[in-house]
Amino acid sequence: MKARLIAIGSELLSGKQDTNSSFLAERLMLLGIDLKEVFIVGNSEAEIADSLQGPPNNTNLIITTGGLGPTEDDITRKTIAKATGKRLILDENILDKIKAYFRERNKEMPKNAERQALIPFGSKTIENKVGTAPGFLFEYKNSVLLSLPGLPKEMRKMFLSIEPFLKEKYGGKEFRKLKIIRTCGVYESWINENLKDIMNQRNGIEIGLVPTEFGIDIRILGSGPKEEEVLNAMGQVEEKIRTKLGDYIYGTGEESMEEVVGRLLREKGVRISVAESCTGGLISNRITNIPGSSDYFERGVVCYSNKSKAEILNIPQSLIEEYGSVSKEAAVAMAENIRLLGKTELGLSVTGIAGPTGGLHGMPIGLVHIALATRTGTKYREHRFISDREGIKIQASQMALDIIRIYLINL
Amino acid sequence: MKARLIAIGSELLSGKQDTNSSFLAERLMLLGIDLKEVFIVGNSEAEIADSLQGPPNNTNLIITTGGLGPTEDDITRKTIAKATGKRLILDENILDKIKAYFRERNKEMPKNAERQALIPFGSKTIENKVGTAPGFLFEYKNSVLLSLPGLPKEMRKMFLSIEPFLKEKYGGKEFRKLKIIRTCGVYESWINENLKDIMNQRNGIEIGLVPTEFGIDIRILGSGPKEEEVLNAMGQVEEKIRTKLGDYIYGTGEESMEEVVGRLLREKGVRISVAESCTGGLISNRITNIPGSSDYFERGVVCYSNKSKAEILNIPQSLIEEYGSVSKEAAVAMAENIRLLGKTELGLSVTGIAGPTGGLHGMPIGLVHIALATRTGTKYREHRFISDREGIKIQASQMALDIIRIYLINL
Repeated sequence: MKARLIAIGSELLSGKQDTNSSFLAERLMLLGIDLKEVFIVGNSEAEIADSLQGPPNNTNLIITTGGLGPTEDDITRKTIAKATGKRLILDENILDKIKAYFRERNKEMPKNAERQALIPFGSKTIENKVGTAPGFLFEYKNSVLLSLPGLPKEMRKMFLSIEPFLKEKYGGKEFRKLKIIRTCGVYESWINENLKDIMNQRNGIEIGLVPTEFGIDIRILGSGPKEEEVLNAMGQVEEKIRTKLGDYIYGTGEESMEEVVGRLLREKGVRISVAESCTGGLISNRITNIPGSSDYFERGVVCYSNKSKAEILNIPQSLIEEYGSVSKEAAVAMAENIRLLGKTELGLSVTGIAGPTGGLHGMPIGLVHIALATRTGTKYREHRFISDREGIKIQASQMALDIIRIYLINL
Repeated sequence: MKARLIAIGSELLSGKQDTNSSFLAERLMLLGIDLKEVFIVGNSEAEIADSLQGPPNNTNLIITTGGLGPTEDDITRKTIAKATGKRLILDENILDKIKAYFRERNKEMPKNAERQALIPFGSKTIENKVGTAPGFLFEYKNSVLLSLPGLPKEMRKMFLSIEPFLKEKYGGKEFRKLKIIRTCGVYESWINENLKDIMNQRNGIEIGLVPTEFGIDIRILGSGPKEEEVLNAMGQVEEKIRTKLGDYIYGTGEESMEEVVGRLLREKGVRISVAESCTGGLISNRITNIPGSSDYFERGVVCYSNKSKAEILNIPQSLIEEYGSVSKEAAVAMAENIRLLGKTELGLSVTGIAGPTGGLHGMPIGLVHIALATRTGTKYREHRFISDREGIKIQASQMALDIIRIYLINL
């Protein structure tokens, strides 16, 4: 099966980033469906209709995203129906769901929301559990046409929900699998140098390095006629990578550092309190993004002012005067005191200079002190990050969570 | 002039995000060049050749990105030459520059790097000051063909360097401008219903609604022969939108809510302390993403446990027992107490249920109480957000920042 993606939205032709196509591209690849091309077109009937025809690449799965909303300029539904000679019919089932959506929120349903219950006759509808616009899928001549809304959150959930159906009905015969290994605290060039031999093997396995703000991700893509052989080869490659990289590897797949740390805290029955300065609440925010984190996250404080460091964390004025609020000594005192105040096994602290101004007393922007107070003493790391303000906050939060992870895996 | 972008690269069809097209889309719009469509295709001669033809949209400026590197699979140069019947000639000037590039870096020039000096006969070349692959531009029949490398850093610099030439030679005679108006706390369908008359006017102004997790953005795109008339018409439209939407509008352009709130806090000389429960540090994090926020952000606390609410915020155990920690009463007490502890003019609090579990005592997931303690009393709002855990946190943080904004603009 050969696929074409059509991203619909005039905003995508005037600067808004289309993120749906890269998501769908990866999913299709894993389904063994060959993506031949992506078209991005405006909310124009002529352009959408043209893109449905397009060049004669023999694509037989066409997926559109966008233009299914309730408003006047959402014309995907109408245009597809016209181009394929289908009538739009009102799906009572969907209308009920849209009505329920507004009823549950104690809102009056706007008249135009009804329009979203119009579906090309004979379609399989795809339920939208996040918003109101449903998707639909139908076969037309030798092709399959699938329409999904443009909001990434809705689109992704809906696509994943019909993936088993797509795999079964239109997926490739070759087995394919992608495994991502996530690393933190190590440079791309170092990985590249140390994995050179593994990366240059030609055994149906492709390895790519993807730098992100959270570290370097290693993508292992295996493909071949036999599932067992592919998994075997991938397993061997992963084993070799793990031997080389050891504890630099913090997770796999989409796993975030906060998920890994949360799982370890839960497994080891350890609770934590956090005192942040330059990260400004980001670490607490990341930890509490994980469902159930209230079991192990006791409290967080964001001590931006020296006064708050003194009042909430009992950091003596004399310490700040002697060493400064951005210092190893301040970080250690913050970590130890938040641990005592929270009466938790761990106390984490971060203090540093996120910039863009404020390189105090000759200290560079990006300098960050991290401390972790534990039952058996206080761990400490100093870092120098190179990025803008938000990038420095992200990298500092990542290395701070990493210090917890390293402590817990050795516990 | 009507343009088509063609992003070339097999990696763009297996999950890598194409960021060049959104950049070029916005630049073209500002040049008054009408982008009709974007195609993403693989490193395949047939697909590239097809995309050069494409549907008969009468596009007469075609810009390709990618596939100009030195390796075997970089076939853009060759394919374009073939499709337009041009010979590739070796440009000695460019070859010298490529040689110099390697010489300056004390590297031996790989043999295949020479290939990058091949240019379709009669092209204007576009120098690459970052890497080695030059771009080129030539007129062919009624069209202009422009090829740029795929590395964003190189592509952007090179496009900007020929923008004046493009503007002069192919730019629209028409004046164009984009204005974005950002709203918060109001539904897309409500805006659509209330702006229907304005949106349906056909006076050279296009209005689009773009839902984001932070609210609905209204994009006003004005175009016409005379700058003054366009600006006038846009001003009138904006005026009407502002009359309808009033304080639902929080900003314009790329402005974030935390930027707006930060600016207002600074202007009014007001400082703030924040007590978060369900948002888990996100509000403090957003406020402190703004450079210089230490001037107005005093402290933040993340009180996840009832114990921490009692200890840090002095919330009486009896209040929690009587009303629960997710209640109007708890929110108000948290806001008032963090205001007193921080000795700031404002104290903000949020408590709620972010889910996915924990719909306590029949209270639904997504229920959020927000309070803002001020000199003259405490403002309070209750919300019910529908999203996943992170979405609820984002929406709650946005509405919490909004309550500060509303207070400050009326101060």
